[in-house]
Amino acid sequence: MLNSVDLDLKLSKSEYKEKYKALETELIHLQREVLEVGMPVLITFEGWSASGKGTLINELSQPMDPRGFRVFEGRCDNGEISYLIPYWKNSPSKGFISVFDRSWYRAGIEDIYKTGEYKKKFIRDAINFEQHHLNSDTLVIKFFLHISKEEQSRRLTDLTSKETTSWRVTEADLKQNLQYEKCLGACNYVIEKTNDVSPWVIVEAEDRLYAKFKVISTVVNKIKKALKEYPKSSGDKVSLKALSEKDPFRKVNLKKSIKPDEYKEQFSDVTSDLTELSYRMFRNGIPLVILYEGWDAAGKGGSIRRLTRFFDPRSYNVVPVAAPTKIEINHNYLWRFWKEMPDKGGVTIFDRSWYGRVLVERVEGFCRPDDWKRAYSEINEVEKHLVDQGVVFIKFWMEISQEEQLHRFERRLEIPHKRWKITEEDWRNREKWDNYKPAVDEMLLRTSTDWAPWTIVEGNNKHYARIKTIKTVRDTLKSIL
Amino acid sequence: MLNSVDLDLKLSKSEYKEKYKALETELIHLQREVLEVGMPVLITFEGWSASGKGTLINELSQPMDPRGFRVFEGRCDNGEISYLIPYWKNSPSKGFISVFDRSWYRAGIEDIYKTGEYKKKFIRDAINFEQHHLNSDTLVIKFFLHISKEEQSRRLTDLTSKETTSWRVTEADLKQNLQYEKCLGACNYVIEKTNDVSPWVIVEAEDRLYAKFKVISTVVNKIKKALKEYPKSSGDKVSLKALSEKDPFRKVNLKKSIKPDEYKEQFSDVTSDLTELSYRMFRNGIPLVILYEGWDAAGKGGSIRRLTRFFDPRSYNVVPVAAPTKIEINHNYLWRFWKEMPDKGGVTIFDRSWYGRVLVERVEGFCRPDDWKRAYSEINEVEKHLVDQGVVFIKFWMEISQEEQLHRFERRLEIPHKRWKITEEDWRNREKWDNYKPAVDEMLLRTSTDWAPWTIVEGNNKHYARIKTIKTVRDTLKSIL
Repeated sequence: MLNSVDLDLKLSKSEYKEKYKALETELIHLQREVLEVGMPVLITFEGWSASGKGTLINELSQPMDPRGFRVFEGRCDNGEISYLIPYWKNSPSKGFISVFDRSWYRAGIEDIYKTGEYKKKFIRDAINFEQHHLNSDTLVIKFFLHISKEEQSRRLTDLTSKETTSWRVTEADLKQNLQYEKCLGACNYVIEKTNDVSPWVIVEAEDRLYAKFKVISTVVNKIKKALKEYPKSSGDKVSLKALSEKDPFRKVNLKKSIKPDEYKEQFSDVTSDLTELSYRMFRNGIPLVILYEGWDAAGKGGSIRRLTRFFDPRSYNVVPVAAPTKIEINHNYLWRFWKEMPDKGGVTIFDRSWYGRVLVERVEGFCRPDDWKRAYSEINEVEKHLVDQGVVFIKFWMEISQEEQLHRFERRLEIPHKRWKITEEDWRNREKWDNYKPAVDEMLLRTSTDWAPWTIVEGNNKHYARIKTIKTVRDTLKSIL
Repeated sequence: MLNSVDLDLKLSKSEYKEKYKALETELIHLQREVLEVGMPVLITFEGWSASGKGTLINELSQPMDPRGFRVFEGRCDNGEISYLIPYWKNSPSKGFISVFDRSWYRAGIEDIYKTGEYKKKFIRDAINFEQHHLNSDTLVIKFFLHISKEEQSRRLTDLTSKETTSWRVTEADLKQNLQYEKCLGACNYVIEKTNDVSPWVIVEAEDRLYAKFKVISTVVNKIKKALKEYPKSSGDKVSLKALSEKDPFRKVNLKKSIKPDEYKEQFSDVTSDLTELSYRMFRNGIPLVILYEGWDAAGKGGSIRRLTRFFDPRSYNVVPVAAPTKIEINHNYLWRFWKEMPDKGGVTIFDRSWYGRVLVERVEGFCRPDDWKRAYSEINEVEKHLVDQGVVFIKFWMEISQEEQLHRFERRLEIPHKRWKITEEDWRNREKWDNYKPAVDEMLLRTSTDWAPWTIVEGNNKHYARIKTIKTVRDTLKSIL
């Protein structure tokens, strides 16, 4: 794609000024509209070193209202568990425009450039990131700023020659110019592979005025077009494959239990090396994500507390997931979970999770059928990415019988300091047990993947459940350390 | 204080178990109450290496509801501009309990320990941090875990001897033990100097059961007591010194202007080295904070846009300050500004700021008179701290006449793409000009400090105002680079 670009396109100063004035006013209007209709906009600037990304981003920022617009660096620091983290964290909310210096495809480009190999997962996961945003009606604009080897060399020489700018030129920049053809190949490859998700806009960036004009006019036109179609409520109907297995619980025996006197001994046994194992995870920089789903009163909280007791309190973070806040509801539903992902060596425990999409949101009608139907594959994709990035990922479904739940609700009402744990909503949810059951079954069948299988925990006996969850965590850590 | 501590206090396992059970239930209840009345609680664990901070924090976490409780590390990474940043960022909101591993006095202790000198500013700024939280009715609990030199040596030897724990012992830990007396002196000094703000609880941490018991019983008792007195609405009346100067605007001439043809030339002149200067700030890791206050339509936004055009968009962050969100209103009023402070080498531009406390919140009655009266010194203290930490701090008051404001409002209504900038609230605020005027005067007089003086910008002529703000920034940067 890049090879056929005509880099001789130019604009005279007077032409530019005339065209720009009208575009600027239009952009101001359009940003207002974006805010009013609540369309999220994600713009990325990818391209060669010294192709002028900074200047162009600045130029685009000028007419914008800063309350609805922000520029982010896509670069990762050391601690992040994935190159997608900065993009997810700063993913635009409704009506907001997020501009990224660099794109989520950068890791893929650099990997091909360095290794000479094309690794499927880099591109696949980045495409998924983009697709998840398109699915939630985000406008995505991808710029690639293109200059020739000669022009890049001229610009780098120019920067290096001045004392005040020479420090801005890194070794990587110079190397890129020397190996321009190799890098061109990598860019070309990635651009072609990722052009179908949403198309790249190649910006002929040798003439600075022409580049500015092309960027601003593209943003204006793309926003205008997207606003007309927003929201794309009548998207393709998501169709799901028929489920082959009928009952994910067929092997689950809720009668499993452990006697109180055996519990103590077994608990000591499964926890004896847990602290040590968690330290080794930390020292080796391996991130751990544990996710709990289950019926109300199935024992998620108690199980989590018994587990975390053996972790260093500075290393883990328990994320209780309730109804989304106003800020969270204005983002892609995955955003609030990405925000809480651990750094390398850290632990995040989700008390409920993104599976809310296919459970409560499905059953209560908080999202459209297409949204929850699509969520199975979206969630599988994200989990695959995390596991590929080296995250140890464990997910528990805590199962109890309807009778046991009733028993626990009643007991909670009797104990003064547990009474607050039981709300009217719990009783309401309980009445909907029969609506939730098929959603639970379908979730377990559609998201039990090779890379992130569910562990179903027989929860009627609390002692049994606690031993099983802790043992699962212990054995998983042991198997990889 | 530490020298007179009896480290022989012990508790038998049976004594502990009996006492603990009752305390645990009480703590669960109290956390509920904390949440219900909305009292913020800040708990810190300071003390010797190997004194058992991690274990005690974990023990305290066990009975807590994780939705209202979180443990944070007080340690700074490299990029922060102040050792107070991790404490401010994670400062508890109403009803939340923030537990810190390490305290805001750590920097002071380490400084004395390293340099042998007592530097006033470390303690002063940390005391201010604590005082600002007490002022907003936060319960502050400060633990110091104390063990003897011999016990520390025993524990470190023990840790070092085992392969699985030896990596946890750092060189600093060993050095602390060798120089125990010196460090004891520093701790003693800081504890004595900071005991008056709110008292330290020295925990005799040699017997682990005794330490656990003391920590939990202290938390229970302090929360119980604080809940009885919450909120301390009838605090001391804040009295302000009479103002000596009467009119901060006596030298301000709103007729100052620049002719359109001169503007272009002057603009080129004051901006010629701005990009270069901003790069040098970045390279030298010097943080820059610019704060704009002023009447509606005084030209804050336009002035900011003309300035930022010369900065790298990845280096600066414009923070438009509007009415606080629900989350912000549940925190100390300074919290939302601390969150936005730049890293080293970064730039934050506040479009309105913490001065809202003594302007809109005062005039509209959004806070109690004591709150805004206290705010002058609180703000001066924070600004002093930032400047001491090496932040370049510039603050502008954009002044226009009432007539000019009316003129601008009317003109905005005429230009379609500026119409949205004018709201009913702007007209309402305009009617209250006479109420705002004394608040503005008092703010300028009380917060024009040696370390952070106001620059009053004569804003009736936009060209003049733009040149003056940019020139002020340029000259300030030049003077320090």
